[in-house]
Amino acid sequence: MTGNTFGKLFRLTTFGESHGRAVGCIVDGCPAGLELSEEDIQKELDRRKPGGWLASPRKEKDEVRILSGVFEGKTLGTPITMMVENRDVDSRPYEEIKDIFRPGHADYTYYAKYGIRDWRGGGRASARETVARVAGGAIAKKLLGMFGIKVVGYTKEVAGIECDVSGLTLDEIASRAEKSDVRCPDSEAEKQMVERIVEARKEGDSVGGVAEVIISGVPPGLGEPVFWKLDAYLAFAFMGVPAVKGVEIGSGFRAVKMKGSEHNDRMRWEKGIKFLSNNAGGVLGGISTGQDIIIRAAIKPTASIAKVQKTVTLHGENVDISVRGRHDPCIVPRAVPVLEAMAALVIADCMMLQGLIPRFLG
Amino acid sequence: MTGNTFGKLFRLTTFGESHGRAVGCIVDGCPAGLELSEEDIQKELDRRKPGGWLASPRKEKDEVRILSGVFEGKTLGTPITMMVENRDVDSRPYEEIKDIFRPGHADYTYYAKYGIRDWRGGGRASARETVARVAGGAIAKKLLGMFGIKVVGYTKEVAGIECDVSGLTLDEIASRAEKSDVRCPDSEAEKQMVERIVEARKEGDSVGGVAEVIISGVPPGLGEPVFWKLDAYLAFAFMGVPAVKGVEIGSGFRAVKMKGSEHNDRMRWEKGIKFLSNNAGGVLGGISTGQDIIIRAAIKPTASIAKVQKTVTLHGENVDISVRGRHDPCIVPRAVPVLEAMAALVIADCMMLQGLIPRFLG
Amino acid sequence: MTGNTFGKLFRLTTFGESHGRAVGCIVDGCPAGLELSEEDIQKELDRRKPGGWLASPRKEKDEVRILSGVFEGKTLGTPITMMVENRDVDSRPYEEIKDIFRPGHADYTYYAKYGIRDWRGGGRASARETVARVAGGAIAKKLLGMFGIKVVGYTKEVAGIECDVSGLTLDEIASRAEKSDVRCPDSEAEKQMVERIVEARKEGDSVGGVAEVIISGVPPGLGEPVFWKLDAYLAFAFMGVPAVKGVEIGSGFRAVKMKGSEHNDRMRWEKGIKFLSNNAGGVLGGISTGQDIIIRAAIKPTASIAKVQKTVTLHGENVDISVRGRHDPCIVPRAVPVLEAMAALVIADCMMLQGLIPRFLG
Amino acid sequence: MTGNTFGKLFRLTTFGESHGRAVGCIVDGCPAGLELSEEDIQKELDRRKPGGWLASPRKEKDEVRILSGVFEGKTLGTPITMMVENRDVDSRPYEEIKDIFRPGHADYTYYAKYGIRDWRGGGRASARETVARVAGGAIAKKLLGMFGIKVVGYTKEVAGIECDVSGLTLDEIASRAEKSDVRCPDSEAEKQMVERIVEARKEGDSVGGVAEVIISGVPPGLGEPVFWKLDAYLAFAFMGVPAVKGVEIGSGFRAVKMKGSEHNDRMRWEKGIKFLSNNAGGVLGGISTGQDIIIRAAIKPTASIAKVQKTVTLHGENVDISVRGRHDPCIVPRAVPVLEAMAALVIADCMMLQGLIPRFLG
Repeated sequence: MTGNTFGKLFRLTTFGESHGRAVGCIVDGCPAGLELSEEDIQKELDRRKPGGWLASPRKEKDEVRILSGVFEGKTLGTPITMMVENRDVDSRPYEEIKDIFRPGHADYTYYAKYGIRDWRGGGRASARETVARVAGGAIAKKLLGMFGIKVVGYTKEVAGIECDVSGLTLDEIASRAEKSDVRCPDSEAEKQMVERIVEARKEGDSVGGVAEVIISGVPPGLGEPVFWKLDAYLAFAFMGVPAVKGVEIGSGFRAVKMKGSEHNDRMRWEKGIKFLSNNAGGVLGGISTGQDIIIRAAIKPTASIAKVQKTVTLHGENVDISVRGRHDPCIVPRAVPVLEAMAALVIADCMMLQGLIPRFLG
Repeated sequence: MTGNTFGKLFRLTTFGESHGRAVGCIVDGCPAGLELSEEDIQKELDRRKPGGWLASPRKEKDEVRILSGVFEGKTLGTPITMMVENRDVDSRPYEEIKDIFRPGHADYTYYAKYGIRDWRGGGRASARETVARVAGGAIAKKLLGMFGIKVVGYTKEVAGIECDVSGLTLDEIASRAEKSDVRCPDSEAEKQMVERIVEARKEGDSVGGVAEVIISGVPPGLGEPVFWKLDAYLAFAFMGVPAVKGVEIGSGFRAVKMKGSEHNDRMRWEKGIKFLSNNAGGVLGGISTGQDIIIRAAIKPTASIAKVQKTVTLHGENVDISVRGRHDPCIVPRAVPVLEAMAALVIADCMMLQGLIPRFLG
Repeated sequence: MTGNTFGKLFRLTTFGESHGRAVGCIVDGCPAGLELSEEDIQKELDRRKPGGWLASPRKEKDEVRILSGVFEGKTLGTPITMMVENRDVDSRPYEEIKDIFRPGHADYTYYAKYGIRDWRGGGRASARETVARVAGGAIAKKLLGMFGIKVVGYTKEVAGIECDVSGLTLDEIASRAEKSDVRCPDSEAEKQMVERIVEARKEGDSVGGVAEVIISGVPPGLGEPVFWKLDAYLAFAFMGVPAVKGVEIGSGFRAVKMKGSEHNDRMRWEKGIKFLSNNAGGVLGGISTGQDIIIRAAIKPTASIAKVQKTVTLHGENVDISVRGRHDPCIVPRAVPVLEAMAALVIADCMMLQGLIPRFLG
Repeated sequence: MTGNTFGKLFRLTTFGESHGRAVGCIVDGCPAGLELSEEDIQKELDRRKPGGWLASPRKEKDEVRILSGVFEGKTLGTPITMMVENRDVDSRPYEEIKDIFRPGHADYTYYAKYGIRDWRGGGRASARETVARVAGGAIAKKLLGMFGIKVVGYTKEVAGIECDVSGLTLDEIASRAEKSDVRCPDSEAEKQMVERIVEARKEGDSVGGVAEVIISGVPPGLGEPVFWKLDAYLAFAFMGVPAVKGVEIGSGFRAVKMKGSEHNDRMRWEKGIKFLSNNAGGVLGGISTGQDIIIRAAIKPTASIAKVQKTVTLHGENVDISVRGRHDPCIVPRAVPVLEAMAALVIADCMMLQGLIPRFLG
């Protein structure tokens, strides 16, 4: 159906199964004249790539090839196709469990929906699909950068350990997060997060957390009421990322315990409108205010765990399962670039809908 | 642009400003042959209507008229248009503040986006627009009822007071909530919620809360990966409702502190697949599992408060404002039927996308 | 489903059955700040209205009311809803034939598709639905006028009589067509067309013809390859108008007998690109060239005729039918404003897609 | 923007420039469980491939690879990606004319729209893009075949020579057309067509023609009034194919000279509804009648001709051009499989919209 396409004017369509020939995407609607190279994409893919000492041992180089839409280093305004071949594919561990529905995974639901499923590495439901989102998001980010818009994500919380970024500039948050094994800009919190993750791995278990994305430089006026409000669109984008169970903007769930007099962001005029706080998270009535947009995603603990779990097979047998394969005990750090990509796609689309990006640049 | 249409196959387009001639909607895509009367719609509109002793004193009868799409008591498969005239309209209190951007409202952002705004009663950004959502949702609910699907919402939390529905059946939750002034099925919690609301009103202030919606009878297989996942679609629907700042499904934000071994819902075979818990909230990999779908929305305190707040005018003056008009000190109870409507629209659309509802009934 | 919405950014959704309460539409996506009154719409509706001495005796005043989206004489950027009540409704002639499938009509196909149909006056399949198209098109025309774009249609051929507009300016074509009973700017041809129509009516029969629409002032660059090419979009728009059986652009079907050396429009540079002919009809590779866009629709003879025809009932009986009701013996003149409306909707949408119309004016 | 995606539920997105790395497509929405191999696609691609003695000497093997969406020989319900590498690419003849706008081509309009263009072999505007349409259509055809629906095209007219297929069955038309160098099932007409084509080639010129597509086995009820009527959708699909200047259905442009009493297709009951003629071309009121659907496309003479033509450069110079490259003097025969593909895509989509194809097969 229409499930694999995201966006209205700046559109991403992704394809690929975890152990199939390739994963990739088509970006349709990118303005012509944008300078774009495979390096621009690769840089973002490398941020998402498995391979840290805390992460899955699957070793994919994730080399991207641009198949169309770019000519002499510039976008043509035609569909940009990007492809990453699947190389370090080992389907054997999956063969043994191909009839088993893994708890916390989409095995049963894909089977219920499609009557067939590619059991190799989770097939289409694998987080490997997010390679394509990051590739598409890389183009959106590059485009937004030309209009002074930045998208920065980081690990806000892991296994109950929260980090504190107060006092840090956006660039400091970004650079510290990139140096951190868990994408946490607060080194105190980082240490404890790592401990919890290592501990969970030892137990054959996993932990969850929260990722935050901050978008700066957004002009006021983005978002399409009443259904395609900017916050609704971002919630849609985030909740569709694997393992996300909740989304909040600005004060989010804390707002429910606040009074109106506390929550409302007051305004003052100082050569323009200035908000005195940002409980709104940069969006009022579904339209950007011009403040930073701040959104968070609640990410569940990785579903694949070595611990024995009770489950069933598609033949109706009750069995025990211990998921081996290659998995991250905490998916939050690798979710960060994916959430950034989704945020960038939303903002690029809203910029185009608002008529703020021309059909060709330069 | 495309912001006022919701849904792919079962589609709702809403229109209307708070103090304009009418609010209403077109539902396109409803199967032919569904029995439908104005009473079916009115029943749901009456649930949303202002007028309880805790609510806004605006007295709208909200009488709906069906203008098209129904013939001899049955839907034709053609667009169903519903209209509710705005009658108890008093724009005078708004006239005084028409150049002022109210804190917590969309006044400034509408102005930034459109360069013009209907300042009467909030115009298009008014919660009055949700009349049209409830009207559209009423048709979705009726349709889903024919397939054994129920959508029930209630007030889960107000101003820090949480209610407990454990042990109650879905029908009990529904009937108790309907009898409650604050749509809370737990009479103990209800009393305290009312106290907090009354107190806030006395102070010229407002409070927020959480609404929960439960959907039962959903077959497995609904939702369209990878972007139009069922939970992503529901998050989109909920976050687009006025005043919502966060959305979570199943364990939601609690999931971030859980381990994989706790969070994963184990399965057993008992004449079919049976899940031993429902942390997933009825959705895995973006596809329904067949369990109840459980979603919650964080609702901020009403933005309109009598307390004096600092703000600005569109002419760049700093002013103080006390918002008079007619407002609810807590919007959660009236948000409940709106969230139910949105949930019903999502499920109806997904049922059609999955091919489970024929183009004509009976 | 999604059949009743037209357009991507400038969107029209229509509703209404011929003898229901009302017909009307929602226009979503019109920029804010456009001056718009009911008179602007009424003027176009009056052009489509039945009532000339050659036309159906149904006497509808077709008074339009704007229900939303306009405030103090300007568009708000929110959905604009327009409604025309059905007043001169006489369903009795239809009651007798409600089980009969009229030849050349959609009676059987609506029944096959929906399992139910509103037999009064053709229900949704009635050409009365085009009231809503003309209302929507009136807004598109007004908007395009601000950018120097004109849309002019006229009757090119009726019953084998072709008219000649060579040497006339666009404004002359428009003004002459408006004064003609058959919307034909060539008075010689007009006389013969009228004779043929009167003759057909006497025989209880009907005739067909060709309408041409010319769009001037279109900038180069409109149209979205490879599927939403400008000519493809226009063909889609025209073929969806009741009674249209063919569409052609520029040289159209004459092109098939031409050689490449005749057909290709040569270019010269004279302070800009100048084409030496316009066989392309203003579109190359699906994108506007900046020349006039010239399109024609082949319109079949009116299906409703008094002459006796063989047909069947929904109960499987063979019967004879003579369609009484109130009908035009030639629909071409009244199709002209409808085709103009559709052309205007396409161009407005393409202008927005190309980023040439801002989100708010003035 | 959204121009490169076709369809609502059965969706094709194409990519690729003529001399880029590859052309290809994603088909999203194909039901799961359909048996599908690369051979199924290749068979159709081979029908479109250049290389007959009358055609362009570009020698592409057009080998398709399926990158995703198929597992163990069956579709997964996930996006099916198909890629064809561009191999026999010779951009040198284009280098010389890269600043020249070729008459009858999209050179100027792409430049006007995008501000940049890939001048190698026509870039995105090349008919090479239709490889992807044929690949997507091959899946649609295979799917429709399971429901008894056939799509057959042939060359109806070339350079004024019309062919006669009266008395032939659909299968005979198909098999004779496939054996013919010009896809004409009438050997008498074929001979003359070939003569005209050879003659044109000698003159450095080109000729046009008409292709007809017949779709049999279509159930009544397909098509979505009022805008997405089946005939409107087909017209959209056909007019978007390169070189098409007109589209007609059933009696088409002949209808304009007919009377209603001639044109209306009478019905009789013989164990079901039987139409006594098919002037409608299988569609009434935009909905299929169950009769054969018959549509024709007017195809202009190939724009690339050796004859010298006057034109301009992007620098504003007046020049003469003789287009060398590798071109077909008549594109009609190779347009046939492309038009078939488009027709199949439309019908597959309408079948799904009408709920007649389940989400998984078998």
